[in-house]
Amino acid sequence: MAQQVNPPRGMRDFLPAEKARREAILSIIRDSYRAHGFDEIETPVLEDSARLHSGLGGDNEKLSYAVLRRGLTTDDLRAAESPLELADLGLRFDLTVPLARFVATHRAQLPGVLRAIQIAPVWRAERPQKGRFRQFVQCDIDIVGEAGPLAEIELLTASIATFGALGIEGATVRINDRRILTAMLDHVGFPAAEHDGVLITVDKLDKIGVDGVVAELRERGATADAVDALEQFLRRPAPGAAPFGESGIRAALPDGLVSDAVAELAVIGTAVNASVGAEAVVYDPWLVRGMGYYTGAIFEAGHPSLPFSIGGGGRYDGMIGRFLGDEVPAAGFSIGFERMVDLVQLPESDADRAIAIVHAPDADPALVVAVRDRFLRDGRRVRLLRRPKKLSVALDALAADGIREWVAVDAGADPAALEPRSLAAL
Amino acid sequence: MAQQVNPPRGMRDFLPAEKARREAILSIIRDSYRAHGFDEIETPVLEDSARLHSGLGGDNEKLSYAVLRRGLTTDDLRAAESPLELADLGLRFDLTVPLARFVATHRAQLPGVLRAIQIAPVWRAERPQKGRFRQFVQCDIDIVGEAGPLAEIELLTASIATFGALGIEGATVRINDRRILTAMLDHVGFPAAEHDGVLITVDKLDKIGVDGVVAELRERGATADAVDALEQFLRRPAPGAAPFGESGIRAALPDGLVSDAVAELAVIGTAVNASVGAEAVVYDPWLVRGMGYYTGAIFEAGHPSLPFSIGGGGRYDGMIGRFLGDEVPAAGFSIGFERMVDLVQLPESDADRAIAIVHAPDADPALVVAVRDRFLRDGRRVRLLRRPKKLSVALDALAADGIREWVAVDAGADPAALEPRSLAAL
Repeated sequence: MAQQVNPPRGMRDFLPAEKARREAILSIIRDSYRAHGFDEIETPVLEDSARLHSGLGGDNEKLSYAVLRRGLTTDDLRAAESPLELADLGLRFDLTVPLARFVATHRAQLPGVLRAIQIAPVWRAERPQKGRFRQFVQCDIDIVGEAGPLAEIELLTASIATFGALGIEGATVRINDRRILTAMLDHVGFPAAEHDGVLITVDKLDKIGVDGVVAELRERGATADAVDALEQFLRRPAPGAAPFGESGIRAALPDGLVSDAVAELAVIGTAVNASVGAEAVVYDPWLVRGMGYYTGAIFEAGHPSLPFSIGGGGRYDGMIGRFLGDEVPAAGFSIGFERMVDLVQLPESDADRAIAIVHAPDADPALVVAVRDRFLRDGRRVRLLRRPKKLSVALDALAADGIREWVAVDAGADPAALEPRSLAAL
Repeated sequence: MAQQVNPPRGMRDFLPAEKARREAILSIIRDSYRAHGFDEIETPVLEDSARLHSGLGGDNEKLSYAVLRRGLTTDDLRAAESPLELADLGLRFDLTVPLARFVATHRAQLPGVLRAIQIAPVWRAERPQKGRFRQFVQCDIDIVGEAGPLAEIELLTASIATFGALGIEGATVRINDRRILTAMLDHVGFPAAEHDGVLITVDKLDKIGVDGVVAELRERGATADAVDALEQFLRRPAPGAAPFGESGIRAALPDGLVSDAVAELAVIGTAVNASVGAEAVVYDPWLVRGMGYYTGAIFEAGHPSLPFSIGGGGRYDGMIGRFLGDEVPAAGFSIGFERMVDLVQLPESDADRAIAIVHAPDADPALVVAVRDRFLRDGRRVRLLRRPKKLSVALDALAADGIREWVAVDAGADPAALEPRSLAAL
């Protein structure tokens, strides 16, 4: 009797139809970014444990899978002070720590500005729940070595074009800048030591509203006068829609706030909207993005019809150079592939050129192959099928797979004379 | 000062040119097998440790990387009898054990005959040495559920066509059958208990010759009369080249040897050669193939110009059903991707449609993007480059990357009026 056999908890197999669909979508993403001048790179799935736990990964470091050293003895187990001492390698939990390591390893061979595509799986030992997986694919692009706003402009125009190539027209990107957020918190009177905590609360504005944010900040014991000033500002009527630009950003900010980042953000938004030919980029003064490593512009992409973000990223100048001991400007964008994969409407696949060859169980293999070769030469995808007892059930299954035609091969058939029959007409 | 930073020992990064090349070759392989009716599937990189160590992987099980359980305490380390007790998962060391698990998990949803493509990395903690890596890509196709020779015929015709698609014309495949090998060893007088050991020695015939094989068998203490009979047979002049077929195979075997596998092997070879239109398949009575799990036909592909095999496989009926507790016929072929990747001559890439946009350091980003958009609309791949101090060096590097044209963008340029200049002419 067969026992139940499954892949490891939280991890997935992909059967032919879903695998084909995922690969077709990834190909569109890859081709679109390549056209925009990005180049694919690859790093090993494993990295040295010390690098994975160097503080660049934030909370994700705690979720990483550790790989046991080889050749350990029981004495080693007795002597270890903690499990991590027994591990020398780990599975990557994101593609950014490996990118930092990659740049440090190969800097001399890389172009001055690297535009990298990374489409690859990552692993996190998350508590399994609906829609969360322990192995999932990330699609990242990063520009390393460009300090100016051209990096953000390229990331956003290429990503909006990629959403378009996936049939997701009308994607919009909210943008902000960590430096403007900092200036705002300074302006309303939060001491620097409170900033990180305040941002964690403000990040929930969409979910808990102004009342919720204010209540949580009071509960946290944030500076009371600053909370009052922030509340006053949050309750201001939003400025009307205005063309993106420095004046549009200023209108959404407290009077008297000073930040160089305003002009730079205006350059980014104006150039992206001009290139895309739409108001694709909008300014959101309360966009925070969770990760601590952002240092400048931040972005989050969405679509009016979807209740979740479809991508995001930002500038993180401090991070890539960490393993180099050097300052390296960098910015990135990540498409939320696993969230989006079910939504993309792919064009008709090459399955409409596929033909099924249904052969008698005792047909001469050489004859079956000769029939197959005839249709292969016509450029068709061929699927062989031994004729089952219930032929009609099998033909229905072929039709459901998108196959439109079939031929029957019996002993003595002439390959050249076989006429394909329609499956759709059944 | 930057310290030396490397990927983990025995594992590789791929920079843009090499990554593009590898992916282009894998695409050709994937497309060719898909046309032949195979479907790509995917399994997680990790499998349950118990499955990886269930005896299906042979010596490779010892080379597998083990993943530490999460949430272990120091007490757990003290209590463990062996390091493996601390691991619940491991990285796959091949794609066959995961395929067996996949078939067991999804059998009800899979077609009666599954033709699977798996192109994916595997991990082995090998002693690092030239040409051996600890993470490498395997390209496997497998036919699960077909007991007849049609499976072997499909595997071989599809693989020979795939070698052709890679520009490797004239690949030949040596084939044999484990049952014929067994019958030969019986025939010359080796008791069954000696067969495995004798085959390990015979497998070295190419390297150590008849003298070496005989000496090693004597050293091993194999039955002396049987060694003499085998030697006599090995020293027989080889039969002249004959068209593949039952009589051709019989001519190469000891007189009086009886095996049903001879007729089946003849069907396979004859059908493949007829389909390919060449003597692509030849019978090699001394082909062994290392892995213990083969039960029927075995194959090894090579090319006259190459000193190593470029692929191989065979029938392994006992294995796929192991997790099902059921007998499932299966046969597979694996292309030696990592060995071949440097040899394939790819056609001119889309790099000849790429254009470089060399912009002044202070050029308006919106202008640079407008120029890029013009060439993107023409269907060209675009690479941006901030003009460096040594322009000629940068242009030489672009030309070396296969880029044929460039434009210079300075303040005030009119995107529509820019004329691409040739890089080849420099």
